[in-house]
Amino acid sequence: MNPYCVATYRCYDEKADFAKKAISIAVGLTVGSWTDMPEAKKAEMERHLGKVVRVDVHEPVGAGGTVSERYADIQIAYPDANFSKDIPALLVTVFGKLSMDGRIKLIDLSFSQDFISAFPGPKFGIQGVRNLLGVHDRPLLMSIFKSVIGHDISALREQFYLQAAGGVDLIKDDEILFENPLTPIEKRVEACLEAAAQAKRETGQELLYAVNLTGSTFGLIDQARKAIAHGANALLFNVLAYGFDALSELSRHPDIKVPIMAHPALAGAFYPSTYHGISANVLLGKLMRLAGADLVLFPSPYGSVVMPREENMAIKEVLLTEQASRYIYTGSGGPASREDNAALPLKTSFPVPSAGIHPGLVPLILKDFGDQVIVNAGGGVHGHPMGAIAGGQAFRQAIDACQAGIPLQDYATAEHPELQAAVKLWGIKE
Amino acid sequence: MNPYCVATYRCYDEKADFAKKAISIAVGLTVGSWTDMPEAKKAEMERHLGKVVRVDVHEPVGAGGTVSERYADIQIAYPDANFSKDIPALLVTVFGKLSMDGRIKLIDLSFSQDFISAFPGPKFGIQGVRNLLGVHDRPLLMSIFKSVIGHDISALREQFYLQAAGGVDLIKDDEILFENPLTPIEKRVEACLEAAAQAKRETGQELLYAVNLTGSTFGLIDQARKAIAHGANALLFNVLAYGFDALSELSRHPDIKVPIMAHPALAGAFYPSTYHGISANVLLGKLMRLAGADLVLFPSPYGSVVMPREENMAIKEVLLTEQASRYIYTGSGGPASREDNAALPLKTSFPVPSAGIHPGLVPLILKDFGDQVIVNAGGGVHGHPMGAIAGGQAFRQAIDACQAGIPLQDYATAEHPELQAAVKLWGIKE
Repeated sequence: MNPYCVATYRCYDEKADFAKKAISIAVGLTVGSWTDMPEAKKAEMERHLGKVVRVDVHEPVGAGGTVSERYADIQIAYPDANFSKDIPALLVTVFGKLSMDGRIKLIDLSFSQDFISAFPGPKFGIQGVRNLLGVHDRPLLMSIFKSVIGHDISALREQFYLQAAGGVDLIKDDEILFENPLTPIEKRVEACLEAAAQAKRETGQELLYAVNLTGSTFGLIDQARKAIAHGANALLFNVLAYGFDALSELSRHPDIKVPIMAHPALAGAFYPSTYHGISANVLLGKLMRLAGADLVLFPSPYGSVVMPREENMAIKEVLLTEQASRYIYTGSGGPASREDNAALPLKTSFPVPSAGIHPGLVPLILKDFGDQVIVNAGGGVHGHPMGAIAGGQAFRQAIDACQAGIPLQDYATAEHPELQAAVKLWGIKE
Repeated sequence: MNPYCVATYRCYDEKADFAKKAISIAVGLTVGSWTDMPEAKKAEMERHLGKVVRVDVHEPVGAGGTVSERYADIQIAYPDANFSKDIPALLVTVFGKLSMDGRIKLIDLSFSQDFISAFPGPKFGIQGVRNLLGVHDRPLLMSIFKSVIGHDISALREQFYLQAAGGVDLIKDDEILFENPLTPIEKRVEACLEAAAQAKRETGQELLYAVNLTGSTFGLIDQARKAIAHGANALLFNVLAYGFDALSELSRHPDIKVPIMAHPALAGAFYPSTYHGISANVLLGKLMRLAGADLVLFPSPYGSVVMPREENMAIKEVLLTEQASRYIYTGSGGPASREDNAALPLKTSFPVPSAGIHPGLVPLILKDFGDQVIVNAGGGVHGHPMGAIAGGQAFRQAIDACQAGIPLQDYATAEHPELQAAVKLWGIKE
């Protein structure tokens, strides 16, 4: 069998013949035309022809039903023979022109074994990040700077120290901090890692600082090299501003010997619409992992900037899954093949649900995500009534409580004043 | 005054306090917090603080009104001091996190004089492309390959020759043609330009062949150099699959001595939603021109894959405008400043409305776009009942008729059998 990559679309239309539309996609986006092709030519072109895998039409049902508009989920298999093994080629093939053709959203992508084998995936993955930190037995804790623009190196260093001293495992740059005269990347890295070393003497903890990789596209490798030469032990990257291929090439580059954290900036231009765009599980899930993100940020379902819980769970599933079947297309129908049950040849990526996180949400986060998650807070650390150090500590205490199976309200006592103060301010949500 | 870039958002919300939301954007996406900042610090941070330029709230009106949902257009000025002078930095600043914050669409962007001066813009622009072709007195004609995947060099060469012999000025690769063993870029360029030379001996016409620039991001310059070394005299680029900065760097690179044609692949993931994404005039208009596209393709309002006419006109306006005022923010209110009336320091880009174009649409296209447009056809050339050469000729005749002020039906006679046959098949739409 020829290898295929498979795209699933949700199309809304009041009266379209969806079966016909599916055929027009399968032919139009591959060989161009088919029925009027001479038979001899057909034999030769067969390996380039797209296939309709499935068309599920959902007719609207009356009041009380779940389908209010007519739509169909259409699944098309595209022969690998038609595109090079990179994400731009795949996306342009499956959703280049088609993205502009009416109310249509790309809701899933599966790859062939061949295609996926061209991607080394995350260089570190969850296990690698845990190894760097020496932490294997609990969810990790990350914090983000409060405000950085217009501040100088010493202000950043101070903010960094307070976060590190509270016991966080990772600190990330603000994604809107670019190269600037006050805090250029090399000075920022040096000052912050010095603060990390100072905190380590007190906490005994390792720490990763994800510094924002920005600037010209063709200069990204050099900029990363510079950051790493000055000690950077992780990178933050605004993937969607540069395209998935830039991430894919950074992550596989031998000089980039540090984990890469993918920021979802601009993702809201793609995923929230019902009728258009690319769904979050593809955009912030499968493609991020395929392109090699070791950690992936996305809007949590808990805060002010929110993504629905089911979309969060779909992202989690594809970042954490070990089985190939969710990623690799092995032909439609029939019993699960050997490949379906094979291990996915990509390391897992850490899910980092972000925005609106306070210590009282930790039980809910761990219930939703399990232990393979990074609890990520900004205001929940800096806004702690006893200061940012206490903010980090309160989170660590909340994680400890959950790990020990103790309800948060029972742990938030005078014995753990930092958690107590946090819970008093923000409450507990379970 | 500090230089600012200005973003305009359309926000939908049934009951939000939009004035308050505007302030939270202006502060939250710049200095982070303001009201609780010490006065001395405020003086220092003022130059980094975002400003609310305008908040226009549109309340819903009853039946017959034009506003069915409550929304506001919010305009925020972001200090240049906060970001580096590149498109990823600007987009991540103005629509990174914010894109995920409810029902909000980026509907306009203006740049500071300073910011825009970091962009050379199109290297050729409309005038430069016309100079290369030696055609200054009429709209240009472009055609696209019919089907390319699975075909070999000699089939491509034949298709190319038929298009060229019909009198088209430009031929573009299919955007889904990637590097492949049958038609690798260097062989494709050589064979097609040989066909162009053959056609030129018959028509006397120059021709640009926009060959698809694909593959790894960090290899794009080398790939372009290879194509140019083999004779490529134009490039096609799937900008949105690689990010605007890749285009910006390609277009300003001294070795890229040929015009770049921007393809809108994936644009439908951004612009069609009412509530989310980035509007077409920004995505396929301002940013494409700023990043240096000499020619910009977008879905025409005439065919099957359509964009509303007013969006087409908005793209045209920003590609063709000579005045700075539509691009450059010079401070709110007051009479137009000197800069408002200045010439924009960017060459104009050729608008290329595409999809569903046949000769009978030429009068309408020229009415909508004027002479500075490229008439671009696929099926309208290849599907001509007398063959592809006649297809190109029919378009040239339609253009001639319009130039001479002769109604198409009066020109589509036995004297112009190619146009006559086209009009018989597809009709005239005026």
